[in-house]
Amino acid sequence: MNINKLKQILRQKNIQLALLFNINNDYDKNMYYFSEYKGLGCLVVPGKKQAFLIVPEMEYERAKKTSKIKIYKWKKGKRLFETLNEILKKNKIKPEIIGISYENFTLSANKSLKKHIKKIKTKDISNDFLELRKIKTRNEINIMKKSCRIADNILKKCLNSFHKFKTEKDVEIFLHSETIKQGCELAFPTIVASGSSGSMAHYEPGNINLKKGFCVIDFGVKYQGYHSDITRTIYIGAPSKEEKETYNLLLNVQENIIKNIRVNKKCMSSYEETLSLLGKYSDKFTHGLGHGIGLQIHELPNLTAKSENIFKNNMIFTVEPGVYFENKYGIRIEDDILIKDKKIEILTKTKKKLIVIKR
Amino acid sequence: MNINKLKQILRQKNIQLALLFNINNDYDKNMYYFSEYKGLGCLVVPGKKQAFLIVPEMEYERAKKTSKIKIYKWKKGKRLFETLNEILKKNKIKPEIIGISYENFTLSANKSLKKHIKKIKTKDISNDFLELRKIKTRNEINIMKKSCRIADNILKKCLNSFHKFKTEKDVEIFLHSETIKQGCELAFPTIVASGSSGSMAHYEPGNINLKKGFCVIDFGVKYQGYHSDITRTIYIGAPSKEEKETYNLLLNVQENIIKNIRVNKKCMSSYEETLSLLGKYSDKFTHGLGHGIGLQIHELPNLTAKSENIFKNNMIFTVEPGVYFENKYGIRIEDDILIKDKKIEILTKTKKKLIVIKR
Repeated sequence: MNINKLKQILRQKNIQLALLFNINNDYDKNMYYFSEYKGLGCLVVPGKKQAFLIVPEMEYERAKKTSKIKIYKWKKGKRLFETLNEILKKNKIKPEIIGISYENFTLSANKSLKKHIKKIKTKDISNDFLELRKIKTRNEINIMKKSCRIADNILKKCLNSFHKFKTEKDVEIFLHSETIKQGCELAFPTIVASGSSGSMAHYEPGNINLKKGFCVIDFGVKYQGYHSDITRTIYIGAPSKEEKETYNLLLNVQENIIKNIRVNKKCMSSYEETLSLLGKYSDKFTHGLGHGIGLQIHELPNLTAKSENIFKNNMIFTVEPGVYFENKYGIRIEDDILIKDKKIEILTKTKKKLIVIKR
Repeated sequence: MNINKLKQILRQKNIQLALLFNINNDYDKNMYYFSEYKGLGCLVVPGKKQAFLIVPEMEYERAKKTSKIKIYKWKKGKRLFETLNEILKKNKIKPEIIGISYENFTLSANKSLKKHIKKIKTKDISNDFLELRKIKTRNEINIMKKSCRIADNILKKCLNSFHKFKTEKDVEIFLHSETIKQGCELAFPTIVASGSSGSMAHYEPGNINLKKGFCVIDFGVKYQGYHSDITRTIYIGAPSKEEKETYNLLLNVQENIIKNIRVNKKCMSSYEETLSLLGKYSDKFTHGLGHGIGLQIHELPNLTAKSENIFKNNMIFTVEPGVYFENKYGIRIEDDILIKDKKIEILTKTKKKLIVIKR
């Protein structure tokens, strides 16, 4: 995807080729983005020639099935960058500057690169990758929609079965098991924070009985590499009038913020509007309003106080205002939003009216 | 654990301090090994002074609970290595050479380190970390035993319920769900390879009906960060006499190899013995005999043809011979082995007599 846009950037920056590299257990998201290949090896994108992958012999069949990019075999007994050097020579590509993501490239890899490919300089292009991935392709949008639908269905099933759960851990295990059954992975460690635990935005579910009061459930799945991220806050027991009012205020804020998102508006403005709409509760809102989602759970755009991002068509991001009352409770409501043809589409569809579980 | 041994190595190598660093989603295993802290931040081990952690303010409480090491707060608005520099100055530590793991340190981190701490050189000490982690502490051995016990229990339950499963994926989902219920994670993607799929050593379970014939199940859990790794091969349908003989031959080889392991013996020798004991099937054995396990699924020692490792007390490793008949079937039997007081202890205890599932 977008490999021609990357080539254009390379030519503009006078970088002869981009090198993306995967040697860890966890696959390189940028390499997957451009090649749809997840295994060991590297992806080479010359500014002026055809891109190619180098993969170990035992991965060759799998790579051919998943990627449309030209593939070379990484020969046994050779170092990866030794093979790369041979291929570059054969194709008469003589790079002076190689663009890599400094965020993902280790000192070991760098040492090996400099050893096998002489007289090159490297340049950090991690930001260019993030900027490209900020705008989703049609295919990415379809996968993200499916990821959100799966998360919605699992969450719905969880809320319908909620009376069965005794502990926070029970809820977490249910969500995780259902995720696996759908052939997905968790997008991030699930948050199930009942009662006073809800006042910590990043609480880990404990092996403790669900407390009465608000219960924050923050959950998402990873489907075909793409993350969904949804939060609903329910109530266990009988909410007081004040609690109901606080919930409805937050829900109102969340819905209005979403409604007011426009193409070419500053992301920062939505954050500021949230503070203003929360009024007397604005100091209880202690984190960012949202973040882009895609191959990573946190991508661009940032919906924060200092964000320089601007809303554009084909962006997908979360809107998740919350209020946290120390040692009392927390409420957060989060949806995944797509801007498409200048219109707002809410991809997560689980109902937001306060659900009350009688205990 | 072993932090004094690390200090000793640093002094011997004239390295003033070791820097371990965690900024990724996946935690740094070495940092966890020495500090039992998994969150963001860094661990600093000076050769001649007390070690300390630097963690973000929001992680301070969690770090204090999990680690016995002195903790400094990473102040908001400052870069991590800026804070490190201030602490080093305050404690009058003037490093000239800093030891880091080149395998885990990114170019971004290196750039930031060199910017904030002037006039230092870095040296790769990734091998020293691996060498230290090769010999397990008493505490690690206890955790590993528990990890193996959990894997055993789940696998037993799976084998007892095997008649219920229709597809390879069903088996995988069962093992994964049970792992979650035990509060653990999978140690690695489970392999369920039935019939001819078993001839690929790294097969991914498919959404296809379990085929008749041998079925390789390679599974393990991660418990408190420590991996277990067990493989059993069962038979679906009715095995022929020849198939039974091949299974029993492999089982015999595996048991004999384990029996013959001795302290101070070369790991390479066990690999060679395997080839010799397999006789006419030796060319069907296409991978290493085993690998160390611990905080990572593949650690030292290596039980391979070219290994330079030697069996020592308090090592834990797998012994997993296999035979693979292309397009027909595969058989692998794998246990986790501990050497303790010069004696061999098999930590994985699931029975190895061929289980036949009638279909």
